[in-house]
Amino acid sequence: MTRSGPDPRQPRLRIRILFGERAMLGPGKAELLERIAEGGSIAAAGRAMGMSYKRAWSLVEEMNAAFREPLVARARGGPGGGGAALTAAGESVLRNYRDLEALTAEAGAERIRAIEALLGDMSGER
Amino acid sequence: MTRSGPDPRQPRLRIRILFGERAMLGPGKAELLERIAEGGSIAAAGRAMGMSYKRAWSLVEEMNAAFREPLVARARGGPGGGGAALTAAGESVLRNYRDLEALTAEAGAERIRAIEALLGDMSGER
Repeated sequence: MTRSGPDPRQPRLRIRILFGERAMLGPGKAELLERIAEGGSIAAAGRAMGMSYKRAWSLVEEMNAAFREPLVARARGGPGGGGAALTAAGESVLRNYRDLEALTAEAGAERIRAIEALLGDMSGER
Repeated sequence: MTRSGPDPRQPRLRIRILFGERAMLGPGKAELLERIAEGGSIAAAGRAMGMSYKRAWSLVEEMNAAFREPLVARARGGPGGGGAALTAAGESVLRNYRDLEALTAEAGAERIRAIEALLGDMSGER
């Protein structure tokens, strides 16, 4: 799966939400949720992000434990099999996080441009 | 120097701006700039953040190199002495970053609350 994504020359925001000691949600977990939703597999989602199966699993379990309802549901099918999907709660968390990204990029655009205008032009950039 | 800061029970955003390969600006560098502005010392600013002198210096040099004009100016005074201050560019970058934080927290408040509402209550929280 390839992602075209935004223009790499454009400034991008990476947003992390810290819910005190209860949970933390950032770009990595959001991408993991999104890839699980698209591909139906925790292992494949982790692999696409260069993550070990164990790491992807542990992030999913962390999210499932932190929220009132699990964000990711596994279908039965033995180790590594059976597939996975987002629950309604998982879809809601992902959608709200993506909305947050879009809203903040819009709200902050002027400030980001002001900082960018002060950057060097890096003519020697590789 | 103590910082009262926001209520730790309230969700907080941590925002990082990625300017392609040119620069990255996030909460750590912003706090370093702020502490330099307040205390007039790179060493003291880094120390207050649990950073080695070398690390604080290297972050300052990285910022100074990435921007058209340095963000931090050092007064003369030999190694470790002489003090440091933000330049006009440094003050502008810091102010725009803090404005960005405030604007995005406001713009994203509803989405953050929606995610928070799905969190468990962690009655067993330590």
